[in-house]
Amino acid sequence: MELYELLMRRRSVRNFKPDEVPEEVVAKLAAAANNAPTGGNMQPLSIIAVREPERRAKLGEMVGSQPWVKNAPLSLIFCLDFWRLKKWAELSGVSFRGNEALSHFLIGYADVMCAAQTVVILAESLGLGSVYVGTIQYVADEVREYFELPPYVFPAMLLSLGYPKTVPRNVPKLAVDVVLHRERYEALSDEEIRKAFDDKYGSLDENVEKYFERAFVEAVEADRQETPAWVEAYRDKMKELAIKNNAEFLFKLRYPSDRMVEFKAEEIETFKRAGFDCFGS
Amino acid sequence: MELYELLMRRRSVRNFKPDEVPEEVVAKLAAAANNAPTGGNMQPLSIIAVREPERRAKLGEMVGSQPWVKNAPLSLIFCLDFWRLKKWAELSGVSFRGNEALSHFLIGYADVMCAAQTVVILAESLGLGSVYVGTIQYVADEVREYFELPPYVFPAMLLSLGYPKTVPRNVPKLAVDVVLHRERYEALSDEEIRKAFDDKYGSLDENVEKYFERAFVEAVEADRQETPAWVEAYRDKMKELAIKNNAEFLFKLRYPSDRMVEFKAEEIETFKRAGFDCFGS
Repeated sequence: MELYELLMRRRSVRNFKPDEVPEEVVAKLAAAANNAPTGGNMQPLSIIAVREPERRAKLGEMVGSQPWVKNAPLSLIFCLDFWRLKKWAELSGVSFRGNEALSHFLIGYADVMCAAQTVVILAESLGLGSVYVGTIQYVADEVREYFELPPYVFPAMLLSLGYPKTVPRNVPKLAVDVVLHRERYEALSDEEIRKAFDDKYGSLDENVEKYFERAFVEAVEADRQETPAWVEAYRDKMKELAIKNNAEFLFKLRYPSDRMVEFKAEEIETFKRAGFDCFGS
Repeated sequence: MELYELLMRRRSVRNFKPDEVPEEVVAKLAAAANNAPTGGNMQPLSIIAVREPERRAKLGEMVGSQPWVKNAPLSLIFCLDFWRLKKWAELSGVSFRGNEALSHFLIGYADVMCAAQTVVILAESLGLGSVYVGTIQYVADEVREYFELPPYVFPAMLLSLGYPKTVPRNVPKLAVDVVLHRERYEALSDEEIRKAFDDKYGSLDENVEKYFERAFVEAVEADRQETPAWVEAYRDKMKELAIKNNAEFLFKLRYPSDRMVEFKAEEIETFKRAGFDCFGS
């Protein structure tokens, strides 16, 4: 299959067979990650491969009982690693203060994501499915302790992988024209924006259950596994909040905007405890 | 060729033939980017495709006279776009405040990089070369004005593409073992760190010119094009600062640590002017 078709077909997979990922596959994924583009060729990346069932279960618990994390035979923790660079600089008689510089953080984090997405695509071509779990950032303290991360190493992204048991059906997407602009930003009118998202999610006259299914594929996939408590809780909450469209679903229930903003100060503290003093002044 | 080999062979390309990138290729790249993984399927991505010679030249000037930007037939500006989501939320009677939330920024920026790296890999498989230009972040004000970005849209990454005229020889990399850890972070000793970077860059007894060539492939590639003034300036500066190892080269000359840290406040202001109040408290 051509790569283009593979990329267009790819969906995040949350339901895995128990089959192990062979060692030679892990080696290939890591080698490709290590060869991904990186600003100034600095390579501020460490990957922790988690395969032991007990440690997978523990990681799954930490990130909020997402059953796919413990069920996936392989989880890769992509860390932004300034510890190694700091040590090396010190040994070379120079100081590296990337952990205090927003620009270093932003380029390093981009490097980490380049490596992670390279793994996603290579894994797909080798018959594996994968799913990103970004919530690992919120539990960085626990992750740092359990996986013995030194200071200046931040667990930036979790990727859980395995051979797919089921692959979600098509996920709704904006039309390409909405995302691609020519020569300058082509701002949509209110009417065009409304239409772009209606085209993506379906219009308001569809029922809430159908919305839920289209918009919240994780819940459907979780249901296939063990229906964790939060799936029921979300369903109840949808009724309670009288969620009547997809924007409300996203920004009232799933990512409640005010709470996300309030959370900022706590998140900055989490980074500081990991030695990253790159936000704020 | 298998994808693995393609990924291992891939290098950033900075020297392009003048040949246009056909419209159907641009369409494929954009479609793959639009289908890349994105947290909560929120798709906070806009891509500006820049092909007009005058606009390419202007963009090249903005990011600091890197000749490959104006010479590349296609440049894609990957923007973190919260404007579209805010408008949609507003039209749906709910508020989206992602521009004030660090967590939204970090997931959205990760989304943007997933899309960008998907384009890098697909482009490579279609015979194109590409190079990331992260410095676009530092000139966000100019870019926002010239490319008419609305508020809440940040130019997060620039990718310049074209058919390669030359491809750099192998770039030195850390051994995979240094980057891949098993079950927990496996901290290297000082001696191991020294060896890891000596293995990467060559040891101290090599001459500075050779270092320079290994460590600073951009300069070599720029030389092949038009030797911009900064290549000479860097060479002079290396002598002046008596750079004697690669860590000094990186953290005294190329990314001077103290200056990078000082720059933080200014960078936070740049984000604020774009409507992103997600750092600091």
